[in-house]
Formats: sequence, C-alpha cells, structure tokens
Amino acid sequence: MQTSPNIQLLMTGNELMIGQVADTNSALIAEWLVEHGYNIHRKVTVGDYLQQLSCEIDTLSQDADILIINGGLGPTSDDLTAQAVSHACGQPLAEHSTAKAELKQWCKQHNLPLDQANLKQITLPSSANRIINPLGTAPGFYLQHNDCLIIATSGVSKELRAMMKDAIIALIQQSYPESSPTHIVRIQTYGIAESTLQTLISKQLPTWPEAIKIGFRVHYPLLEVKLSVTGDQHLPLLAPWQNQLQALIASEWIGQDQTTLAGRVIELLIQHGKTLTTAESCTGGLIASMLTTEPGTSAIFSMGFVTYSNHAKQTVLGVDVTILAREGAVSRDAVLAMANGALANSGADYAIAVSGIAGPTGGSPSKPVGTVWIAWGQAKHLHAHKVILTGSRRTIQKKAACVALDLIRREVADIKEKPRYFY
Amino acid sequence: MQTSPNIQLLMTGNELMIGQVADTNSALIAEWLVEHGYNIHRKVTVGDYLQQLSCEIDTLSQDADILIINGGLGPTSDDLTAQAVSHACGQPLAEHSTAKAELKQWCKQHNLPLDQANLKQITLPSSANRIINPLGTAPGFYLQHNDCLIIATSGVSKELRAMMKDAIIALIQQSYPESSPTHIVRIQTYGIAESTLQTLISKQLPTWPEAIKIGFRVHYPLLEVKLSVTGDQHLPLLAPWQNQLQALIASEWIGQDQTTLAGRVIELLIQHGKTLTTAESCTGGLIASMLTTEPGTSAIFSMGFVTYSNHAKQTVLGVDVTILAREGAVSRDAVLAMANGALANSGADYAIAVSGIAGPTGGSPSKPVGTVWIAWGQAKHLHAHKVILTGSRRTIQKKAACVALDLIRREVADIKEKPRYFY
Repeated sequence: MQTSPNIQLLMTGNELMIGQVADTNSALIAEWLVEHGYNIHRKVTVGDYLQQLSCEIDTLSQDADILIINGGLGPTSDDLTAQAVSHACGQPLAEHSTAKAELKQWCKQHNLPLDQANLKQITLPSSANRIINPLGTAPGFYLQHNDCLIIATSGVSKELRAMMKDAIIALIQQSYPESSPTHIVRIQTYGIAESTLQTLISKQLPTWPEAIKIGFRVHYPLLEVKLSVTGDQHLPLLAPWQNQLQALIASEWIGQDQTTLAGRVIELLIQHGKTLTTAESCTGGLIASMLTTEPGTSAIFSMGFVTYSNHAKQTVLGVDVTILAREGAVSRDAVLAMANGALANSGADYAIAVSGIAGPTGGSPSKPVGTVWIAWGQAKHLHAHKVILTGSRRTIQKKAACVALDLIRREVADIKEKPRYFY
Repeated sequence: MQTSPNIQLLMTGNELMIGQVADTNSALIAEWLVEHGYNIHRKVTVGDYLQQLSCEIDTLSQDADILIINGGLGPTSDDLTAQAVSHACGQPLAEHSTAKAELKQWCKQHNLPLDQANLKQITLPSSANRIINPLGTAPGFYLQHNDCLIIATSGVSKELRAMMKDAIIALIQQSYPESSPTHIVRIQTYGIAESTLQTLISKQLPTWPEAIKIGFRVHYPLLEVKLSVTGDQHLPLLAPWQNQLQALIASEWIGQDQTTLAGRVIELLIQHGKTLTTAESCTGGLIASMLTTEPGTSAIFSMGFVTYSNHAKQTVLGVDVTILAREGAVSRDAVLAMANGALANSGADYAIAVSGIAGPTGGSPSKPVGTVWIAWGQAKHLHAHKVILTGSRRTIQKKAACVALDLIRREVADIKEKPRYFY
C-alpha cells in the first residue's frame, strides 16, 4: 500500500480562464487534503471545451494516482465533465439507477419537476459510482481508469465542501490509508509581526521540537499561528509546547480557531461584567459594526456614537468648542472629551474614542494622513495615544478600529506591557 | 502573423498547493489579457520544486506560443524560476548587466545594501531580457524557447500589475498584434437579479446586437453588467445600446466602473444639497461605516447613532417606551420613532433607521430571524417597510444596510417604482 499518492487536480470552467472569479475551490480541496495528510502534486485549469477536457483527463490520469476533477456537473450544455470522462475512459454514458432514484426523491421533496436537464446530471460514465450531493441535484462520481482513481466533484463550494467531508476523504483513505494523520492547532494573535514572532521563538524557545511545524497566515487584522504535528506519536508534544508559546505571547494572544478581536473583547467584558461604548469620528461606525457583528454583543454594548463633524462632537458628546478650536478634532484633548461624553451619555463602564485623518485629503504637515488619536479606558482612568497609520482610506480606518479594540482588550485583561505597535 | 496565440500560464508556489492562499494573480493576468483581446488556453499550478518546474516549462513551452510564469523571482532559496527556465532551455545563468545597474540604483535610492540575496534576483538565463519591476528589486524576464515566448512575472500582485501594464501587454502585442481590441463598459446595478435582467433584455430589447456581449458579475451587494465589443468597427454600437439598457433599468442603475451604493447615495445628496443621518440597531454601525468609507462623505453626513439596546433607543433617540413595550423594538412604530429622533438630534434632511433580528438567536414565530424594519425619508415624509432577509448574522446585517441605503437612494433620486425586492 502506497501512503503518499500522486494527487492531481483538474479545475474546469470558462469563468476561471477569463479572470471573472478567483479559484477558491482548489484552495478548499487542498486544505482538506493537507489536513488529512495528503499533498497535491499538480493542478491544471482549463475552460469548458469537450475535446480539451477529455484530452487532459486522459493525460493526467496516466500520471496521477488520484485525479480530482472540479466543476462541470450541472444541467447546462457547458457542463461537460461526465461526457469528457466518458470519452477519456472509452466508456458510454448511462443513467445511473441509484442516482436517478435519489434524484426523483429529491425532486419530490423539493417540489421540483424531473426534467431533461435534471436527468442529464445523473447520466454518468457506465462504470462510475455516484457520490451523494446532500445539497443539490447533481451528484459527484468516481471510477478507476489507467490505474488512477478519478473523482468528479461539484463546482459549487458548499456542495464541494459537503462531498469532501461526507465521502471523498473516506474514498481516498480507502485506497491510501492515512498512515500519519496530522493534528492542527490554530492560535489567533494581534499586534505581533510574523518575523518578530519567529525571532522570539528561536531565541526564547530554542529547544522547540522539530516535530511541531509552525505556519503563519495573515488574515487581517489577525496573524494566525498554526501548529501541526504529523503522526499520533508526536501528539503529546502539542499541548505543552502550545502552552509555552502562549505564555511567550500572552499579551498578543487573542484565542483559538475562529476567535476575532471584537469577539475576544466581548468575551473579556462579559467575564468582568462590564460594558463598553464607542465614540467614532474617522472610523465612522466601523468599531461599533465590528462589535455588533458578533452574536452576544448585547450583553456588553448598548449604544455607540458616530460623530463625524465637529458640530456632532459638540452637540452629541459635549466636546468643548475651545478644545476643537485650539487643538483640533484630531488631538489628545478631543478624543478624551469624546470618550468622556460617550461614557456620560451611555453609563457604560469603558469607552473607546477615535479621531483621525483617514485621507485621502485633509492631511497637513503637522497632522499627515494616517494620524489617529485614540482614547480608551474607564471614566477617570482614560488613556490617550497617537498612532500614525499607512494605507488607503479604508485600510487606515480598519487599522485604527483594530488598534482601538486591541487597546480596550489590553485594558480589560489588565495587560501591563506596552503594545509593540506603539513607537 | 497569428492573431490568436495559444497562451498558457504556469503558476508557482507551495502556498498555492496547500490551500493557504487563493490564486488571485491568475485572475489578474486573465482579466488583462481578455481586455486586450487574448485568451488563456490552459493554466498549470505547481509547488516550488526545481525538477518539476523545469519539466513543466519544457513541456508547456512545446505546446504554447506564449508561456507566462508567475512567481519565484524573489531572493530566497524557494524562488526557483530563473533556475528552472535555465534548466528547461539549456542555457546557463548569468548576472544581467542592465538589471544589475538598475538594482544598484534602486538600493542606493532606498538605502538598502546590495547583498547576495539581491544579486540572485538579477541572475537570469543568459539569453533573457529583463522586465523592469518599478515596485521592487526582482525584475521579470522574457526569452524565446521552442518557438515559445516565455515571460516570467512577479508573484507579488502589485508588482505583477505594474509589469503587465508597463511591459507585458506591449511585449505580447509586438509578437501577436491585437487585430480586434475589446472595448468594455461596466455598469453597476442594485436590486435586480441576473436572471430577471436577462429576461428583461430579451423581452424589451429583442434586437440587441449580437456584437455586444453581455456579462454579469455579482460582487455583493452590486450586480455588475459588463458590455463588451470586439473590434473597432462595432464600437459605435456601444454607447446607444448602453443608453437603452440604462433606460430599461433606470431605477436599479447605480453608476459605472467603481461606483458603490454608498458612493451613489452621497453623490445624489451632494447634488441635491441635502444631508443624512442614521439610527441603527441590528446593523450596529454598518450603514454609517459604509457611508464614511467613501471620501467626501463629510459633505452630507455629520452624525449617526448606534442604538443597540431599548434603553439606547429611548435615551438617545427619544423612542417612546410605550412603543417598545407595545410593538417591540422591531416594528414600524419603533423605526419611525428612531428616524424622527435622529432627525431631531442631527438637524439632517434625511434619515435612515433600521431595527431587526440578525440572529442567530432572538427570533420568534411572529418575528423570525431576518425580520428587519426600515424607516427612511425626510421629517414628516417618512416611510417604513418590513423585509425578511436570509443568511448568516453578518449577511442579514449587510443585506439590511444595503436595502436601507438603496431606499434612501430611491427617495433622493425621486424614483417612483416599487423596488423589486419588496414583496
């Protein structure tokens, strides 16, 4: 039994050839395979042309142990996968009796007519087995050809995901048992760069075991750190070293898996039984939006204020006109007054206030585009700090919102260290 | 001279094989080529393995007229493109003198040391010409092999974009003159589905010329309609038919090119010399954030209110407690009162108010998750409407924000038709 099969992908669809959509399905397939200990050797992408498709299938199936085809299972004349496989493998198309029975059932349940277009989808190469599609009418299928396992999968992402999970991984494992399953832990961090973290690990944790691979993925605003071990024998290493790593970056640690920055802030506030309000100028509601995207935010967030103009800062938050005249809206005194106004209006325990110049216009030599003042904390314990951010208007807004949320996170969690992004 | 070359892409990088990132560069290359009248025949993606890379280059260059390689030009040991091309073409690597002079200049300008890693980037196959990289230290390059024009391009998107624009299209046009340039118009619409629009066009504009191709791209919340003609002789058709189409969907027309829904609202309000305020419950600041993402919003937007709790609706917007007790916060009367409160607080001309159940919890049989009430208009001319939206919490919030912005757009533009999404 071979444990590391040569897996190749054939991605199909005209839309992939003209730049209309980015190919996210192949990333999905790759991620699943890698998590199960398999690798993709090669990926070929072509448009919906029968001749070219069957030629590719023939060539790839001679080279690969497993060929995963994605797309082309639907009802329209552009959906050519079954036909192309049938050409390449020299076998006729036929209605698949089990798939037909399942299709009839589906149509009945969903009150849909069983028409020619539907029947086309269960017309498969004669030796093919169908792969159940729990979310649609077009099944996937698989068959053996040229000593290659050919698997045809849905081009609709959610259907593909369901097929991978329910059937395809098992199908591959049947032929190529996963001798070394991979165990993965994902840690979300904020406020530390990949290179800084790498240096920190090699300096502070010099005996880091080779068996635990460290990977990084920036999915803004967070840096995800992925720890993985291949083989059950290394699994016991994972927890203790994960703990050592977390201790090393305790102040930048946000959470595991899908945790977000706003989600962590909400979690901490709930733990401490505290509430938060927002006073936003240049972020224009983005911080409130990030908080309210999380379910459960109502426990800690009652109201927020978007005070975009100076007039709004005065009338809604009671910012003194002399501060605005003397210091300007982008100043320490202005954000402190905004935070105090929001605290007084809302009765919340904590406030975040942000005022800055997001650009593209509005900068000056003393306050260039990207200058952002942030105030945060509790009444009578407010802090304020200035950061200079770079990027487009939207990027500056996003960065400012993230820094503000991170500062309140540090405050609530009582983290004493100065953030690395303060300079 | 051949006018339609066989163009193939070789995308390189381990990160593309493990699902870590989606391949957006190939979409970028494809879009550029299509806009200039060229098509991609085939795309192959492989990891950073020298043997496999040079083998692919050799095979692909025998089949293709033009082979565009993306990635692997950088300074690290994983960057193998020059080496792989040199193997495949049987020619040694050598420092490229012009590229070296340019690199020295760059390092001087950017105060960087000229080290071995940098020198590796200008060590190219001996017959190669360099392609200037205006944004980085690693040039691209091109050469002729097997009757194939091989072009190596940067894997960094912004560098790739610059190389395509400055050099690569011209390089391809030199060998394969674009006999039929493509002219493209992009129209942004909101509130009409692709299938509805297709039916409308075939019914109302039955003589639509075959020479004008219609393409659709959903980039939520907008549906982009792309009109394209190939060949200068058809160009005169474009403007009159574009006008006919715009007349057909006048109420769903948002703008051309990069226009956004919020951008159109701001544009209309500026035209009419009016201002807007927001009162948000379930959208939690998202509408304010969408407005303030656009530069120039300060002309029409002074303040917005995020009133997430009932307490906030009462104290900030003066919503009568009896309304909240009798009708609930998700009701016609509540959103009308929220809008009136925001108008009174802000002195703005128009208001948007939104209150709904974004889920995942909080639904009831009479008000299921997705129930959203929206009020919009001017003081004493306020409307309110209920929509039932589907999807995740985030999706419901986004849809609600977009419907609200669209309703105020229709109000300011004085569009009388009922939106298609009202049912």
